[in-house]
Amino acid sequence: MPHIPLDPDLPGIRGAMAFRPETAKPLNELVEVLLRHPNSLSAGERELIATYVSSRNCTQFCHSIHGAVAAAHLGGNEDLVRQVKVDFMQAEISPKLKALLSIAGKVQQDGKLVTPADIEAARREGATDMEIHDTVLIAAAFCMYNRYVDGLGTNQPADPAFYRERGKRVAREGYVAASEEYLAPHSSAAAH
Amino acid sequence: MPHIPLDPDLPGIRGAMAFRPETAKPLNELVEVLLRHPNSLSAGERELIATYVSSRNCTQFCHSIHGAVAAAHLGGNEDLVRQVKVDFMQAEISPKLKALLSIAGKVQQDGKLVTPADIEAARREGATDMEIHDTVLIAAAFCMYNRYVDGLGTNQPADPAFYRERGKRVAREGYVAASEEYLAPHSSAAAH
Repeated sequence: MPHIPLDPDLPGIRGAMAFRPETAKPLNELVEVLLRHPNSLSAGERELIATYVSSRNCTQFCHSIHGAVAAAHLGGNEDLVRQVKVDFMQAEISPKLKALLSIAGKVQQDGKLVTPADIEAARREGATDMEIHDTVLIAAAFCMYNRYVDGLGTNQPADPAFYRERGKRVAREGYVAASEEYLAPHSSAAAH
Repeated sequence: MPHIPLDPDLPGIRGAMAFRPETAKPLNELVEVLLRHPNSLSAGERELIATYVSSRNCTQFCHSIHGAVAAAHLGGNEDLVRQVKVDFMQAEISPKLKALLSIAGKVQQDGKLVTPADIEAARREGATDMEIHDTVLIAAAFCMYNRYVDGLGTNQPADPAFYRERGKRVAREGYVAASEEYLAPHSSAAAH
Protein backbone atom coordinates (compact mmCIF):
# COMPACT_ATOMS: atom_id res chain seq x y z
CA MET A 1 0.00 0.00 0.00
CA PRO A 2 1.42 3.42 -1.00
CA HIS A 3 2.60 5.74 1.79
CA ILE A 4 0.46 8.60 0.42
CA PRO A 5 -2.90 8.38 -1.38
CA LEU A 6 -2.14 7.44 -5.01
CA ASP A 7 -4.66 6.38 -7.67
CA PRO A 8 -4.90 2.57 -7.32
CA ASP A 9 -5.42 2.25 -11.08
CA LEU A 10 -2.00 3.78 -11.74
CA PRO A 11 0.80 1.46 -10.56
CA GLY A 12 4.47 2.36 -10.07
CA ILE A 13 5.69 5.76 -11.16
CA ARG A 14 2.40 6.54 -12.89
CA GLY A 15 0.49 7.07 -9.65
CA ALA A 16 3.29 9.25 -8.30
CA MET A 17 3.35 11.32 -11.50
CA ALA A 18 -0.40 11.81 -11.48
CA PHE A 19 -0.15 12.99 -7.85
CA ARG A 20 2.36 15.71 -8.81
CA PRO A 21 2.11 16.71 -12.50
CA GLU A 22 4.52 19.67 -11.98
CA THR A 23 7.42 17.30 -11.32
CA ALA A 24 6.11 14.63 -13.71
CA LYS A 25 6.76 16.99 -16.62
CA PRO A 26 10.57 17.29 -16.28
CA LEU A 27 10.78 13.63 -15.15
CA ASN A 28 9.10 12.51 -18.36
CA GLU A 29 11.10 14.91 -20.53
CA LEU A 30 14.37 13.65 -19.08
CA VAL A 31 13.59 10.00 -19.80
CA GLU A 32 12.30 10.91 -23.26
CA VAL A 33 15.58 12.68 -24.19
CA LEU A 34 17.79 10.01 -22.63
CA LEU A 35 16.03 6.90 -23.92
CA ARG A 36 14.17 7.99 -27.07
CA HIS A 37 15.80 10.95 -28.81
CA PRO A 38 18.17 10.25 -31.72
CA ASN A 39 21.39 8.78 -30.36
CA SER A 40 24.30 6.63 -31.53
CA LEU A 41 23.19 4.13 -28.86
CA SER A 42 20.02 2.37 -30.02
CA ALA A 43 16.81 2.71 -28.01
CA GLY A 44 17.14 -0.99 -27.13
CA GLU A 45 20.69 -0.50 -25.79
CA ARG A 46 19.64 2.49 -23.69
CA GLU A 47 16.63 0.62 -22.30
CA LEU A 48 18.97 -2.26 -21.36
CA ILE A 49 21.12 0.18 -19.34
CA ALA A 50 17.99 1.47 -17.57
CA THR A 51 16.78 -2.09 -16.98
CA TYR A 52 20.14 -3.24 -15.61
CA VAL A 53 20.41 -0.34 -13.13
CA SER A 54 16.80 -0.81 -12.00
CA SER A 55 17.44 -4.51 -11.54
CA ARG A 56 20.50 -3.78 -9.37
CA ASN A 57 18.30 -1.47 -7.30
CA CYS A 58 15.71 -4.27 -7.07
CA THR A 59 12.88 -1.99 -8.18
CA GLN A 60 10.41 -4.42 -9.71
CA PHE A 61 8.21 -1.90 -11.51
CA CYS A 62 11.15 -0.18 -13.25
CA HIS A 63 13.21 -3.22 -14.25
CA SER A 64 10.05 -4.98 -15.47
CA ILE A 65 8.66 -2.12 -17.55
CA HIS A 66 12.01 -1.01 -19.00
CA GLY A 67 12.92 -4.66 -19.60
CA ALA A 68 9.65 -4.99 -21.53
CA VAL A 69 10.35 -1.80 -23.52
CA ALA A 70 13.87 -3.08 -24.27
CA ALA A 71 12.47 -6.44 -25.46
CA ALA A 72 9.96 -4.63 -27.68
CA HIS A 73 12.84 -2.70 -29.27
CA LEU A 74 14.86 -5.93 -29.64
CA GLY A 75 12.37 -7.98 -31.61
CA GLY A 76 10.73 -9.47 -28.52
CA ASN A 77 13.95 -11.02 -27.22
CA GLU A 78 13.03 -11.40 -23.54
CA ASP A 79 15.79 -13.96 -22.99
CA LEU A 80 18.42 -11.35 -23.83
CA VAL A 81 16.89 -8.90 -21.36
CA ARG A 82 16.88 -11.57 -18.66
CA GLN A 83 20.51 -12.43 -19.39
CA VAL A 84 21.54 -8.77 -19.08
CA LYS A 85 19.89 -8.62 -15.66
CA VAL A 86 21.51 -11.84 -14.46
CA ASP A 87 25.04 -11.58 -15.93
CA PHE A 88 25.53 -9.14 -18.79
CA MET A 89 29.10 -10.28 -19.45
CA GLN A 90 27.65 -13.55 -20.77
CA ALA A 91 24.90 -11.84 -22.82
CA GLU A 92 24.94 -11.59 -26.61
CA ILE A 93 25.54 -7.84 -26.68
CA SER A 94 28.39 -5.79 -28.10
CA PRO A 95 31.69 -5.40 -26.20
CA LYS A 96 30.97 -1.65 -26.19
CA LEU A 97 27.64 -2.13 -24.42
CA LYS A 98 29.31 -4.45 -21.90
CA ALA A 99 31.88 -1.75 -21.12
CA LEU A 100 29.11 0.85 -20.73
CA LEU A 101 27.08 -1.45 -18.47
CA SER A 102 30.17 -1.84 -16.27
CA ILE A 103 30.28 1.94 -15.89
CA ALA A 104 26.51 2.05 -15.23
CA GLY A 105 26.89 -0.59 -12.50
CA LYS A 106 29.49 1.54 -10.75
CA VAL A 107 27.38 4.69 -11.00
CA GLN A 108 24.47 2.71 -9.49
CA GLN A 109 26.63 2.14 -6.41
CA ASP A 110 28.51 5.46 -6.29
CA GLY A 111 29.71 7.69 -9.12
CA LYS A 112 33.10 7.99 -7.48
CA LEU A 113 33.80 4.32 -8.25
CA VAL A 114 34.16 5.05 -11.98
CA THR A 115 37.87 5.02 -12.84
CA PRO A 116 39.88 6.30 -15.83
CA ALA A 117 40.50 2.61 -16.63
CA ASP A 118 36.72 2.00 -16.93
CA ILE A 119 36.45 4.93 -19.33
CA GLU A 120 39.50 3.80 -21.30
CA ALA A 121 38.02 0.30 -21.64
CA ALA A 122 34.80 1.77 -23.06
CA ARG A 123 36.72 3.99 -25.46
CA ARG A 124 38.75 1.01 -26.70
CA GLU A 125 35.44 -0.61 -27.71
CA GLY A 126 34.43 2.53 -29.60
CA ALA A 127 32.37 4.44 -27.01
CA THR A 128 32.16 8.18 -27.67
CA ASP A 129 32.20 11.00 -25.11
CA MET A 130 28.47 11.45 -25.61
CA GLU A 131 27.78 7.74 -25.11
CA ILE A 132 29.82 7.78 -21.89
CA HIS A 133 27.97 10.90 -20.72
CA ASP A 134 24.57 9.41 -21.48
CA THR A 135 25.43 6.10 -19.82
CA VAL A 136 26.40 7.92 -16.61
CA LEU A 137 23.26 10.06 -16.68
CA ILE A 138 20.91 7.14 -17.52
CA ALA A 139 22.37 5.17 -14.60
CA ALA A 140 22.13 8.19 -12.28
CA ALA A 141 18.58 9.00 -13.41
CA PHE A 142 17.35 5.47 -12.74
CA CYS A 143 18.81 5.66 -9.24
CA MET A 144 16.31 8.52 -8.89
CA TYR A 145 13.31 6.90 -10.59
CA ASN A 146 13.87 3.67 -8.63
CA ARG A 147 14.04 5.47 -5.28
CA TYR A 148 10.99 7.56 -6.17
CA VAL A 149 8.92 4.47 -6.98
CA ASP A 150 10.13 2.49 -3.95
CA GLY A 151 10.24 5.40 -1.48
CA LEU A 152 6.54 6.13 -1.91
CA GLY A 153 5.64 2.45 -1.52
CA THR A 154 3.87 2.41 -4.91
CA ASN A 155 1.96 -0.62 -6.14
CA GLN A 156 4.20 -2.74 -8.38
CA PRO A 157 2.26 -5.47 -10.22
CA ALA A 158 3.82 -8.95 -10.40
CA ASP A 159 2.15 -10.07 -13.65
CA PRO A 160 4.64 -10.07 -16.61
CA ALA A 161 1.72 -9.68 -19.04
CA PHE A 162 1.00 -6.23 -17.60
CA TYR A 163 4.52 -5.05 -18.38
CA ARG A 164 4.65 -6.76 -21.78
CA GLU A 165 1.59 -4.92 -23.04
CA ARG A 166 2.61 -1.59 -21.61
CA GLY A 167 6.20 -2.04 -22.87
CA LYS A 168 5.01 -2.45 -26.45
CA ARG A 169 3.00 0.74 -26.24
CA VAL A 170 5.81 2.80 -24.70
CA ALA A 171 8.26 1.46 -27.31
CA ARG A 172 5.84 2.61 -30.00
CA GLU A 173 4.67 5.97 -28.61
CA GLY A 174 7.33 7.15 -26.15
CA TYR A 175 7.11 8.24 -22.53
CA VAL A 176 5.60 11.68 -22.92
CA ALA A 177 2.83 10.54 -25.28
CA ALA A 178 1.98 7.41 -23.29
CA SER A 179 1.57 9.42 -20.09
CA GLU A 180 -0.56 12.23 -21.45
CA GLU A 181 -3.82 10.57 -20.60
CA TYR A 182 -3.18 10.33 -16.87
CA LEU A 183 -1.32 13.61 -16.58
CA ALA A 184 -4.26 15.51 -18.08
CA PRO A 185 -6.79 16.45 -15.38
CA HIS A 186 -9.80 14.14 -14.86
CA SER A 187 -8.44 11.39 -17.03
CA SER A 188 -8.37 7.72 -16.20
CA ALA A 189 -5.58 5.73 -17.66
CA ALA A 190 -2.11 4.51 -17.92
CA ALA A 191 3.43 5.64 -19.10
CA HIS A 192 6.48 3.90 -17.99
CA MET B 1 40.23 15.52 -14.18
CA PRO B 2 36.82 14.86 -15.79
CA HIS B 3 36.34 11.56 -17.66
CA ILE B 4 35.09 13.41 -20.76
CA PRO B 5 36.12 16.87 -22.04
CA LEU B 6 34.19 19.41 -19.95
CA ASP B 7 34.76 23.19 -19.85
CA PRO B 8 37.37 23.72 -17.10
CA ASP B 9 35.74 27.04 -16.19
CA LEU B 10 32.49 25.26 -15.27
CA PRO B 11 32.94 23.08 -12.17
CA GLY B 12 30.60 20.35 -10.94
CA ILE B 13 27.24 19.88 -12.64
CA ARG B 14 27.69 23.07 -14.66
CA GLY B 15 30.28 21.56 -17.00
CA ALA B 16 28.14 18.44 -17.46
CA MET B 17 25.07 20.57 -18.22
CA ALA B 18 26.95 22.70 -20.73
CA PHE B 19 28.14 19.50 -22.44
CA ARG B 20 24.54 18.29 -22.93
CA PRO B 21 22.00 21.16 -22.90
CA GLU B 22 19.17 18.83 -24.00
CA THR B 23 19.31 16.97 -20.68
CA ALA B 24 20.28 20.09 -18.70
CA LYS B 25 16.86 21.58 -19.45
CA PRO B 26 14.70 18.99 -17.60
CA LEU B 27 17.39 18.61 -14.91
CA ASN B 28 17.21 22.33 -14.16
CA GLU B 29 13.41 22.43 -14.38
CA LEU B 30 13.12 19.56 -11.90
CA VAL B 31 15.33 21.23 -9.30
CA GLU B 32 13.56 24.54 -9.85
CA VAL B 33 10.12 23.02 -9.16
CA LEU B 34 11.32 20.95 -6.21
CA LEU B 35 13.45 23.55 -4.43
CA ARG B 36 12.08 26.93 -5.54
CA HIS B 37 8.40 26.83 -6.48
CA PRO B 38 5.82 27.82 -3.86
CA ASN B 39 5.63 25.08 -1.24
CA SER B 40 4.58 24.65 2.39
CA LEU B 41 8.20 23.65 3.05
CA SER B 42 10.40 26.74 2.93
CA ALA B 43 13.18 27.02 0.34
CA GLY B 44 15.68 26.77 3.19
CA GLU B 45 14.12 23.54 4.47
CA ARG B 46 14.13 21.98 1.02
CA GLU B 47 17.75 23.01 0.43
CA LEU B 48 18.64 21.39 3.76
CA ILE B 49 17.12 18.10 2.55
CA ALA B 50 19.14 18.34 -0.69
CA THR B 51 22.28 19.21 1.27
CA TYR B 52 21.82 16.35 3.72
CA VAL B 53 21.34 13.74 0.98
CA SER B 54 24.33 15.08 -0.98
CA SER B 55 26.41 14.98 2.16
CA ARG B 56 25.46 11.34 2.77
CA ASN B 57 26.51 10.60 -0.81
CA CYS B 58 29.79 12.46 -0.13
CA THR B 59 29.44 14.62 -3.24
CA GLN B 60 31.41 17.71 -2.35
CA PHE B 61 30.16 19.98 -5.10
CA CYS B 62 26.48 19.31 -4.35
CA HIS B 63 26.55 19.40 -0.55
CA SER B 64 28.70 22.53 -0.65
CA ILE B 65 26.62 24.51 -3.14
CA HIS B 66 23.23 23.45 -1.75
CA GLY B 67 24.54 24.02 1.77
CA ALA B 68 25.50 27.53 0.69
CA VAL B 69 22.10 28.13 -0.92
CA ALA B 70 20.42 26.83 2.28
CA ALA B 71 22.54 29.19 4.40
CA ALA B 72 21.64 32.12 2.14
CA HIS B 73 17.95 31.33 2.67
CA LEU B 74 18.50 30.95 6.43
CA GLY B 75 20.04 34.35 7.13
CA GLY B 76 23.61 33.16 6.59
CA ASN B 77 23.41 30.48 9.28
CA GLU B 78 26.26 28.22 8.12
CA ASP B 79 26.50 26.58 11.54
CA LEU B 80 22.98 25.23 11.20
CA VAL B 81 23.79 23.77 7.79
CA ARG B 82 26.92 22.12 9.21
CA GLN B 83 24.93 20.69 12.10
CA VAL B 84 22.34 19.19 9.74
CA LYS B 85 25.13 17.46 7.82
CA VAL B 86 26.81 16.12 10.97
CA ASP B 87 23.79 15.14 13.12
CA PHE B 88 20.45 16.67 12.22
CA MET B 89 18.72 15.25 15.29
CA GLN B 90 20.75 17.73 17.37
CA ALA B 91 20.14 20.67 15.00
CA GLU B 92 17.82 23.58 15.78
CA ILE B 93 15.22 22.62 13.20
CA SER B 94 11.57 21.69 13.58
CA PRO B 95 10.51 18.17 14.64
CA LYS B 96 8.71 17.93 11.29
CA LEU B 97 11.90 18.60 9.34
CA LYS B 98 13.75 16.04 11.45
CA ALA B 99 11.11 13.42 10.59
CA LEU B 100 11.35 14.32 6.89
CA LEU B 101 15.18 14.16 6.98
CA SER B 102 14.89 10.66 8.47
CA ILE B 103 12.78 9.64 5.47
CA ALA B 104 15.24 11.33 3.09
CA GLY B 105 18.14 9.43 4.66
CA LYS B 106 16.39 6.13 4.03
CA VAL B 107 15.56 7.04 0.42
CA GLN B 108 19.25 7.93 -0.06
CA GLN B 109 20.11 4.34 0.84
CA ASP B 110 17.13 2.54 -0.73
CA GLY B 111 13.52 3.66 -1.08
CA LYS B 112 12.33 0.28 0.18
CA LEU B 113 13.68 1.13 3.64
CA VAL B 114 10.93 3.72 4.23
CA THR B 115 8.34 2.19 6.56
CA PRO B 116 4.76 3.11 7.46
CA ALA B 117 6.13 4.02 10.91
CA ASP B 118 8.49 6.60 9.32
CA ILE B 119 5.53 8.13 7.49
CA GLU B 120 3.36 8.06 10.59
CA ALA B 121 6.09 9.82 12.59
CA ALA B 122 6.26 12.60 9.99
CA ARG B 123 2.47 12.96 9.93
CA ARG B 124 2.40 13.24 13.73
CA GLU B 125 4.68 16.28 13.39
CA GLY B 126 2.31 17.81 10.85
CA ALA B 127 3.81 16.67 7.52
CA THR B 128 1.33 16.67 4.62
CA ASP B 129 1.09 14.14 1.78
CA MET B 130 2.67 16.68 -0.56
CA GLU B 131 5.56 17.34 1.84
CA ILE B 132 6.19 13.60 2.15
CA HIS B 133 6.05 13.23 -1.64
CA ASP B 134 8.44 16.11 -2.20
CA THR B 135 10.87 14.88 0.45
CA VAL B 136 11.04 11.46 -1.24
CA LEU B 137 11.53 13.02 -4.67
CA ILE B 138 14.13 15.57 -3.51
CA ALA B 139 16.12 12.76 -1.88
CA ALA B 140 15.77 10.55 -4.97
CA ALA B 141 16.68 13.41 -7.32
CA PHE B 142 19.85 14.23 -5.40
CA CYS B 143 20.88 10.59 -5.64
CA MET B 144 20.82 11.30 -9.38
CA TYR B 145 22.53 14.70 -9.36
CA ASN B 146 25.23 13.40 -7.02
CA ARG B 147 25.97 10.35 -9.19
CA TYR B 148 25.97 12.50 -12.32
CA VAL B 149 28.51 14.90 -10.86
CA ASP B 150 30.72 12.15 -9.40
CA GLY B 151 30.34 9.64 -12.24
CA LEU B 152 31.77 12.06 -14.80
CA GLY B 153 34.69 12.92 -12.53
CA THR B 154 33.81 16.63 -12.63
CA ASN B 155 36.02 19.27 -11.01
CA GLN B 156 34.72 20.07 -7.51
CA PRO B 157 36.41 23.13 -5.98
CA ALA B 158 37.49 22.95 -2.34
CA ASP B 159 37.27 26.69 -1.57
CA PRO B 160 34.19 27.53 0.60
CA ALA B 161 34.26 31.11 -0.73
CA PHE B 162 33.43 29.81 -4.22
CA TYR B 163 30.27 28.11 -2.97
CA ARG B 164 29.30 31.00 -0.67
CA GLU B 165 29.24 33.49 -3.55
CA ARG B 166 27.47 31.18 -5.94
CA GLY B 167 24.99 30.12 -3.23
CA LYS B 168 23.89 33.71 -2.69
CA ARG B 169 23.26 34.19 -6.37
CA VAL B 170 21.29 30.95 -6.80
CA ALA B 171 19.21 31.76 -3.70
CA ARG B 172 18.40 35.13 -5.27
CA GLU B 173 17.85 34.14 -8.92
CA GLY B 174 17.01 30.43 -8.97
CA TYR B 175 18.54 27.52 -10.88
CA VAL B 176 17.13 28.13 -14.33
CA ALA B 177 18.05 31.84 -14.39
CA ALA B 178 21.53 31.32 -12.93
CA SER B 179 22.39 28.71 -15.56
CA GLU B 180 21.17 30.56 -18.62
CA GLU B 181 24.51 32.13 -19.37
CA TYR B 182 26.39 28.86 -19.79
CA LEU B 183 23.54 26.95 -21.37
CA ALA B 184 23.24 29.53 -24.15
CA PRO B 185 25.64 28.66 -27.00
CA HIS B 186 29.07 30.38 -27.08
CA SER B 187 28.68 31.86 -23.65
CA SER B 188 31.27 31.83 -20.91
CA ALA B 189 30.04 31.68 -17.39
CA ALA B 190 28.67 30.12 -14.35
CA ALA B 191 24.14 27.42 -11.86
CA HIS B 192 24.05 25.08 -9.03
